[in-house]
Amino acid sequence: MESLKLGGMLHDRKIESTPEYMRKLFIMPDSSDRFVEFGVHLLDMIHDFFKEKGGIHSSISMEDLAKIFCNIEMPSQPQLIRDVLDEIKNNIIKHSVKVANPYYIGHMTSAIPYFMILLEMIAVSLNQNQVKIESAKASSFVEREFLCWIHQLIYRNSTEFYKKHIQNPKIALGNITSDGTVANLTALILAMAKAFPPDRKGFRGVRVEGLARALDHYGYRQALFLVSKRGHYSICKAGTILGVGEQGIIRVPVQPCINKIDINKLQCIVHKIRKEDKAVGLPTKFVALVGIAGTTETGNIDDLEALSEIARDLGAHFHVDAAWGGGALLMDGARDMMKGIEKADSVTMDAHKLLYAPNSMGICVFKDIDDSRNLYHTSNYIIREGSVDLGRFTMEGSRSFSCLKPWAAVKIIGRHGYKLIFDHARELQKTFVEFIERDTLFELMNKPELFIINYRFVPEEFRTLLKSLMKNPRRNSDRITAINKVINALNIELHKTIRDHDMSFVSRTRLESTRYAPRKIVVLRAITINPNTERYMLRQILNEHRNMGIRLWNGMKKTCQETMGILAAAS
Amino acid sequence: MESLKLGGMLHDRKIESTPEYMRKLFIMPDSSDRFVEFGVHLLDMIHDFFKEKGGIHSSISMEDLAKIFCNIEMPSQPQLIRDVLDEIKNNIIKHSVKVANPYYIGHMTSAIPYFMILLEMIAVSLNQNQVKIESAKASSFVEREFLCWIHQLIYRNSTEFYKKHIQNPKIALGNITSDGTVANLTALILAMAKAFPPDRKGFRGVRVEGLARALDHYGYRQALFLVSKRGHYSICKAGTILGVGEQGIIRVPVQPCINKIDINKLQCIVHKIRKEDKAVGLPTKFVALVGIAGTTETGNIDDLEALSEIARDLGAHFHVDAAWGGGALLMDGARDMMKGIEKADSVTMDAHKLLYAPNSMGICVFKDIDDSRNLYHTSNYIIREGSVDLGRFTMEGSRSFSCLKPWAAVKIIGRHGYKLIFDHARELQKTFVEFIERDTLFELMNKPELFIINYRFVPEEFRTLLKSLMKNPRRNSDRITAINKVINALNIELHKTIRDHDMSFVSRTRLESTRYAPRKIVVLRAITINPNTERYMLRQILNEHRNMGIRLWNGMKKTCQETMGILAAAS
Repeated sequence: MESLKLGGMLHDRKIESTPEYMRKLFIMPDSSDRFVEFGVHLLDMIHDFFKEKGGIHSSISMEDLAKIFCNIEMPSQPQLIRDVLDEIKNNIIKHSVKVANPYYIGHMTSAIPYFMILLEMIAVSLNQNQVKIESAKASSFVEREFLCWIHQLIYRNSTEFYKKHIQNPKIALGNITSDGTVANLTALILAMAKAFPPDRKGFRGVRVEGLARALDHYGYRQALFLVSKRGHYSICKAGTILGVGEQGIIRVPVQPCINKIDINKLQCIVHKIRKEDKAVGLPTKFVALVGIAGTTETGNIDDLEALSEIARDLGAHFHVDAAWGGGALLMDGARDMMKGIEKADSVTMDAHKLLYAPNSMGICVFKDIDDSRNLYHTSNYIIREGSVDLGRFTMEGSRSFSCLKPWAAVKIIGRHGYKLIFDHARELQKTFVEFIERDTLFELMNKPELFIINYRFVPEEFRTLLKSLMKNPRRNSDRITAINKVINALNIELHKTIRDHDMSFVSRTRLESTRYAPRKIVVLRAITINPNTERYMLRQILNEHRNMGIRLWNGMKKTCQETMGILAAAS
Repeated sequence: MESLKLGGMLHDRKIESTPEYMRKLFIMPDSSDRFVEFGVHLLDMIHDFFKEKGGIHSSISMEDLAKIFCNIEMPSQPQLIRDVLDEIKNNIIKHSVKVANPYYIGHMTSAIPYFMILLEMIAVSLNQNQVKIESAKASSFVEREFLCWIHQLIYRNSTEFYKKHIQNPKIALGNITSDGTVANLTALILAMAKAFPPDRKGFRGVRVEGLARALDHYGYRQALFLVSKRGHYSICKAGTILGVGEQGIIRVPVQPCINKIDINKLQCIVHKIRKEDKAVGLPTKFVALVGIAGTTETGNIDDLEALSEIARDLGAHFHVDAAWGGGALLMDGARDMMKGIEKADSVTMDAHKLLYAPNSMGICVFKDIDDSRNLYHTSNYIIREGSVDLGRFTMEGSRSFSCLKPWAAVKIIGRHGYKLIFDHARELQKTFVEFIERDTLFELMNKPELFIINYRFVPEEFRTLLKSLMKNPRRNSDRITAINKVINALNIELHKTIRDHDMSFVSRTRLESTRYAPRKIVVLRAITINPNTERYMLRQILNEHRNMGIRLWNGMKKTCQETMGILAAAS
């Protein structure tokens, strides 16, 4: 059957759905030539996608996309690989988001080095399952080496320590996870186990007996986690999962603009809880204090040094969520910004963020190697006693060999290369901030540290007025609020217009921690990490936003009678 | 700088670590020819790996592997892509496990169709992040369509239902997860939320107030989950995570050999708990009852129909873990085997198992579409009210476009193609069982249903003896135990020998649910899902095991004086 030959598959138009055909799908074509035939076809498709100018998001409407993907049942008969690839080209690639576009500066998902495609090809071909050494031999060792690098990057222990533990199968320097959320969850699971350990009075630990009995046994009235209001929503999610509830996650206010946890307020909150403890007659267990190295919305970094001391005083696990900022430790000066990170009991870092790996891979490293035993699992068939399987420590079961990508990337790019990439990102950040600060129609809304800039469009009429009103914010409170309400609405419209125009992309959020705190202020959010974004592009982007803002405001002005009245009264 | 041109990278031996070089790493080479240069190099590497005869696991020792991967710090200077690829070839690919080898029949990780490499190339190139529509446009719709297929495969609702909901952004027919463990966890998180919902008395639900207050508010003394002893260890893991503890997971015995949950014993357990409830004066909340469609160790399927009724009576969420068996629903006759699965409130299925996707991707579908609201999350910057982002429902945050692979595979293979693949797997299972049953030196240890066969080597001397002793198992209990102890030790040695010889691979586990229950019996475990495994290979594999077993037993016999004594006394 000539039509079943693999080399022919690309061009033949018929398939006979036979066992032989199915079996051949599982065999690598005899020569790589044949496979390359597909590969070239594919690479052309990918090329076209990247070369295409214009829209970042395809202009197709959600309704029309829904119409394309509306087959409610699995297809019955096999289709030619070529036809499916064409379908992917026309229906999926065409309508994908060009996250690598240098004008796409709105999310943490950005361009990745093209060699990642090669590495992914290797990883998928090998199809190792990291859960078990029997299905992941060299890759288990690669994973341990990579975790050692990250551990060393953060904790900088002695050479001796790492020589001893880099390939020590009895412990884990950390875990590779599917993303930062699971990495944070892993750390907080660990914190729970440490907060309510087994003891000599017959209590077998929270992992065995559960939270209700743990609280009862240790005589606590509640278990709490502390994190700033800028904490990633995965921390709240973890609260709902771990049985303490969202209520168990105490979200501490941050200092306006700098978005760092307010240490005084943190202490006040703890003090208040301790007072309540006394009234109730039962203490609270602070399970973990979470510091942030690069908040998702603002890129700012908590005072980790101060937090580590408070955590110690509280007897709480100190976790640092550096999902965003962790990779930036390779940048000059970053260690000073993150001083104290080496005191964290655990640290989360995402490879798909500042290590520029594809979506998605999280990392969680543990300071104290014995801590990993608190995550230990066994089972007869998958993990026997004495095993060296990585799966003993992970929350997930089956896992791909995803760490090959950042492992090889670190080799290809080198620490020095990452430094250069971050220099560029920092330069762009500086440029963007300058552009904003020099422009009378934009207001900078945070003090950028790690490549995230919050800003907003402010109409000429409001600029000086807001400034003077803010000299006595209490007396002018209502007017400040009213004006910000209008500016909020304007920036929401502006963001929609940016998205519709689709030449560039920034994201949008709402912060309570600007100079107008505690008012919730709508801000635009730019992230300057794409190595292909250039200074002139940022200029273009801001010019565009500026013109859109002016146009929108001209149309909106008349409808804002009330605020304009306030404005008139003030001037 | 000629040496920085991408086309040249493959051959040039020098890198200047400059910003320009780094920037270029992020740009797809101008012509696909240049990229293909790498691609061909890579494919040759992959080819070599697959073509190489002999060892499934590389023979390198753990100690020597540890020596290769012992660089304790990230490299400082960039290395040529070519050099890193060569390093990967020599140090990683060479020492990877050949999970696609047709003689590797020991784990659920097996061969994947080669077109998965192409699909993975597309997914990584697009680098969409499924968490948010702003970074995943068409791919969000693909994911919903794929989830609809799986929902339809299991629940077979009306065409109307699916037309209405396939692309309904307000709900989720299911979640794509990183693996089956997270899929199971997702289902049990959902079950918890449903067990302790918000009410009109001011209780805001377990997700907000936590487990201790939920128990208190609803007046329960404890929250329990029920699953059989063959349940995957992810269920116990979920117990430790969700705050009920391992103790909160009640593991119900199964019927010997068929490994299905013992319905009578389940009812006895519930009855006993209810009695204790009365004594304590507080009821127990049964949060969820978990049925299994394809246990990990034995491939057997619970009586899902009966379980669904019990779950209903208990007011418990009924979850089916079909991580293994779910894909087999495409096989003729499988629906009868899994009767009742359509009554499950949620079902887990793994794409990297019987859909033959690469490691790893889990799926969890929800019967009642309103249930997905119990998983709902929002956050200002990432998920706004009114959003259509997939991330609202998922436990994970950032997620790759992994569903492209099974989505396209289902098109390329077709339902009919999967049917053919499973026909082959079933045929192999039947063959293997026949070989074992005809051979006086092997004993079949389960009643295979979904391609998993448990068996062991039994020396000639023990075979008939055990049979006659088992006619009166109570009287002969000690002798049966003693003999099995020897056979256990023998099979552990046999398994080690198989691994050392490395011509084939089966796995090993220890079951309490054989005909010798409750004794723990060491068994070998074969999984016949590789489309390239053939009948004659199974014959070869068993012959090899047979010969090894005989040799081992000859060496061992003399040292087993005691058991041989028992043997002598009995004969």
